[in-house]
Amino acid sequence: MDLHELIDLLPDGTVITDADLLASYRQDHANDPDAGTPVAVVRANSTDDVATTLRWAHERHIGVIPRGAGSGLSGGATAVDGCLMLSTERMRAITVDPVTRTAIVQPGLMNAEVKRAVAEHGLWYPPDPSSFEICSIGGNAATNAGGLCCVKYGVTTDYILGAEVVLADGTVLRLGGPRLKDSAGLSLTKLFIGSEGTLGVFTELTLRLLPAQPPQSTVVAGFATLAGAVEAILAITGELRPSMLEFMDSVTINAVEDEMRMGLDRNAAALLIARSDAPGQFALREAELMVEACEKAGATEVFHTEDLEEGEAFTAARRFAIPAVERLGALLLEDVGVPLPRLGDLVTGIEAIAQRHEVTVSLIAHAGDGNTHPLIVHDPTDPAQTARAHEAFGEIMHLAIELGGTITGEHGVGRLKKPWLVDQLGPEVLAVSQRIKDALDPHGILNPGAVL
Amino acid sequence: MDLHELIDLLPDGTVITDADLLASYRQDHANDPDAGTPVAVVRANSTDDVATTLRWAHERHIGVIPRGAGSGLSGGATAVDGCLMLSTERMRAITVDPVTRTAIVQPGLMNAEVKRAVAEHGLWYPPDPSSFEICSIGGNAATNAGGLCCVKYGVTTDYILGAEVVLADGTVLRLGGPRLKDSAGLSLTKLFIGSEGTLGVFTELTLRLLPAQPPQSTVVAGFATLAGAVEAILAITGELRPSMLEFMDSVTINAVEDEMRMGLDRNAAALLIARSDAPGQFALREAELMVEACEKAGATEVFHTEDLEEGEAFTAARRFAIPAVERLGALLLEDVGVPLPRLGDLVTGIEAIAQRHEVTVSLIAHAGDGNTHPLIVHDPTDPAQTARAHEAFGEIMHLAIELGGTITGEHGVGRLKKPWLVDQLGPEVLAVSQRIKDALDPHGILNPGAVL
Ligand SMILES: Cc1cc2nc3c(=O)[nH]c(=O)nc-3n(C[C@H](O)[C@H](O)[C@H](O)COP(=O)(O)OP(=O)(O)OC[C@H]3O[C@@H](n4cnc5c(N)ncnc54)[C@H](O)[C@@H]3O)c2cc1C
Ligand SMILES: Cc1cc2nc3c(=O)[nH]c(=O)nc-3n(C[C@H](O)[C@H](O)[C@H](O)COP(=O)(O)OP(=O)(O)OC[C@H]3O[C@@H](n4cnc5c(N)ncnc54)[C@H](O)[C@@H]3O)c2cc1C
Repeated sequence: MDLHELIDLLPDGTVITDADLLASYRQDHANDPDAGTPVAVVRANSTDDVATTLRWAHERHIGVIPRGAGSGLSGGATAVDGCLMLSTERMRAITVDPVTRTAIVQPGLMNAEVKRAVAEHGLWYPPDPSSFEICSIGGNAATNAGGLCCVKYGVTTDYILGAEVVLADGTVLRLGGPRLKDSAGLSLTKLFIGSEGTLGVFTELTLRLLPAQPPQSTVVAGFATLAGAVEAILAITGELRPSMLEFMDSVTINAVEDEMRMGLDRNAAALLIARSDAPGQFALREAELMVEACEKAGATEVFHTEDLEEGEAFTAARRFAIPAVERLGALLLEDVGVPLPRLGDLVTGIEAIAQRHEVTVSLIAHAGDGNTHPLIVHDPTDPAQTARAHEAFGEIMHLAIELGGTITGEHGVGRLKKPWLVDQLGPEVLAVSQRIKDALDPHGILNPGAVL
Repeated sequence: MDLHELIDLLPDGTVITDADLLASYRQDHANDPDAGTPVAVVRANSTDDVATTLRWAHERHIGVIPRGAGSGLSGGATAVDGCLMLSTERMRAITVDPVTRTAIVQPGLMNAEVKRAVAEHGLWYPPDPSSFEICSIGGNAATNAGGLCCVKYGVTTDYILGAEVVLADGTVLRLGGPRLKDSAGLSLTKLFIGSEGTLGVFTELTLRLLPAQPPQSTVVAGFATLAGAVEAILAITGELRPSMLEFMDSVTINAVEDEMRMGLDRNAAALLIARSDAPGQFALREAELMVEACEKAGATEVFHTEDLEEGEAFTAARRFAIPAVERLGALLLEDVGVPLPRLGDLVTGIEAIAQRHEVTVSLIAHAGDGNTHPLIVHDPTDPAQTARAHEAFGEIMHLAIELGGTITGEHGVGRLKKPWLVDQLGPEVLAVSQRIKDALDPHGILNPGAVL
């Protein structure tokens, strides 16, 4: 591949070919050992750079892998030999409009940076993946990221009113805008959201913002059994709208406690962390109802605080769960979700699969919306154990599908979950998806090998 | 066209060819005088009937126009000569699951019937078009309908978790399901929502429900100038999240008062009706803040009630605005929206257009989200006036586009607004939309002549 032409078309320093630097763009957070090596990384400075790169690659049928911050957990931003990586990390502008309660952001800004910028205007961008400090808003749009507050506030797609998207052939589309309602034409903005870089590259997003979140009350409850915790989850979601409802099992509690030493009950089978942001004294009232629900479900210990820093500390502990469990070994990261009434069956089923395959599974969940992260811990230098871990990985997805659920609640399909996608969606839905892909990217250069 | 084959393929009584009956399916609520006459109406009893009809029509390249309740305001369900109308009016099943807070509904149920069925379980389906008693939930999904509570609660797409959709060739797709989060594959559900029957026919929807809405406080304020009302709107949305924020101008107030005689101030230039459903005494507090905002903006009369029936009466008055204005003459129904800070410019600009073209315009608005309905009243037997009305119709759309807005906030493009769609979206976005249409409906049989 003659890169000189592309290098000449773009501003100085935009294209990287240095081998050491390239290596750092090979993997995302799924750490796929089979990742390829890109021929170059384009660090776009502008929409123009993105369009130029795609036009060039489109004419030559060269694969292009969009990349935000590389925190993805399903290998959506894993390099493929011979491909270009197209990074948006340098595109970092933001303007906030408090009157329309919208922000216009470039994709490279971290989610946390967006939150901070809008907070200066007394506003709030709700979606809050645990990775919020290390994931880009463009990656969030591309994966339709979820997070902790989604149980009450919905996911990324609910907060995107418009976008600038560059298609595979370099065409720049402007979709939607700072209008709360817009029924003109097909819902293209929504189609691109969650398409994991297979249909186009986001170069700008128009975000819908809310007034600052009210202060939250926090409830932490320990349970001697998984069943007790599940009972409490269903009781809470059946009656209230918590602003957060998170779950950690005993493996996770201990991994977090090893690192953070904050006095979590190491003997508990499960821990729930629930919050309410209902206005004024209603937060306290909701918290009290959650305490009651936990006690009624047999909690061994229930703790309730109105102190914001204390509440934040528990939330931070939950956010730290994946990094903490990562210290136990290599991980296969699951993201299965089920309709809430099947959560108990999912949890029990996962336990059985772990036992049958003799692997350790740490179970974390955005419990309030039925989205779980079983993390399958294994030693990658032990081929037999690694093989068993992979078998468990597939079985957990099949279990979720059987229970009427999904193989991915928020991380996306990427490359890791592609083999199972047809089992969930069926061949017709996949065929229709492929027809849309072909209509928008006829040479299949965008994120080849991911999702479809 | 030999309909006998189709008649034989479907259950007895499914296909109507009686001329009188056909006539009642020619128009939707846009009352297009140029509506065609269908060759037949298929009143499907089931997904199978829909699939059979489409497969049959697809093979013969016969146009099919999906129809819900025919309350659409942009001619999306207007008949075309030689086409089949495919009505979902007979598909009326619903099941509610209080545990997952979801409902599975067939498309033919009225929005109001859905609301009532879920209310029996203490639940709430928020989207509330003014037409809620006379529009189907399938039509709502197809137009991504808005309504009065959208300013706080969002539009139809925010409440649809999954769907069964039949494609042009009769393929039945099952998309999503009762899962609050699902990132598996492309966001096809969202693509079909708002596609106005051009991509597929909804035969089932999975709705996301909320706990029952708390009781609302209601504020009604009259203003001597349009500018004063706009100032109050911006002050309220800048500070609070009202559960409703509606606007009527003087023409509308008088048309409603003529019919309902509820003592609205006939001399006011504009009336705002605002509500708050914040929990407990917070609704009262929000209402007081709204009263203050209106007074500060120079309201001539401000009225505040905690009485639910009284609040409902004012809301009903607002809902009755379109039917009331319809008694003044034939209407061209606009649906333009702008980013909130441009609302004042839109309102002034519409006034100027009405004066220049010497037509009466009644202005109603879902003010809180910048979505206005200028209703252009005219006498269809007066060709000169009708021509001026049509000119004003186009100019209002251009004004909205100039102000960074949309030609349709919630009613959809249908047949009436198709000529202006390109002015808003631009040729690239339209071309991409057409590529998607061609990928899903290669013979172009679905709702031919609408939107694209
Ligand atoms: C510790 C940890 C916790 C996490 N917790 C959560 C969580 O709670 N919820 C959640 O949803 N996710 C979570 N994640 C996963 C991850 O952070 C999200 O998927 C995030 O949205 C990815 O953003 P990114 O910028 O890192 O994207 P990348 O990893 O760089 O890319 C992700 C995908 O998006 C595509 N992409 C990236 N940028 C663009 C663009 N501008 N245009 C088009 N396509 C693009 C890529 O091709 C790829 O397919 C977690 C990850 C970690 C490591
Ligand atoms: C007095 C009045 C007030 C109104 N107020 C509002 C309002 O506040 N907000 C608002 O959004 N709208 C409003 N409308 C417009 C209208 O009610 C909505 O657009 C409604 O969603 C249409 O539903 P319907 O069942 O009547 O659809 P129809 O008019 O039958 O069809 C509308 C469109 O949807 C398609 N369609 C219908 N059913 C299906 C299906 N099952 N699958 C695929 N495509 C289908 C049709 O082809 C057509 O393009 C109002 C209308 C009136 C008369």
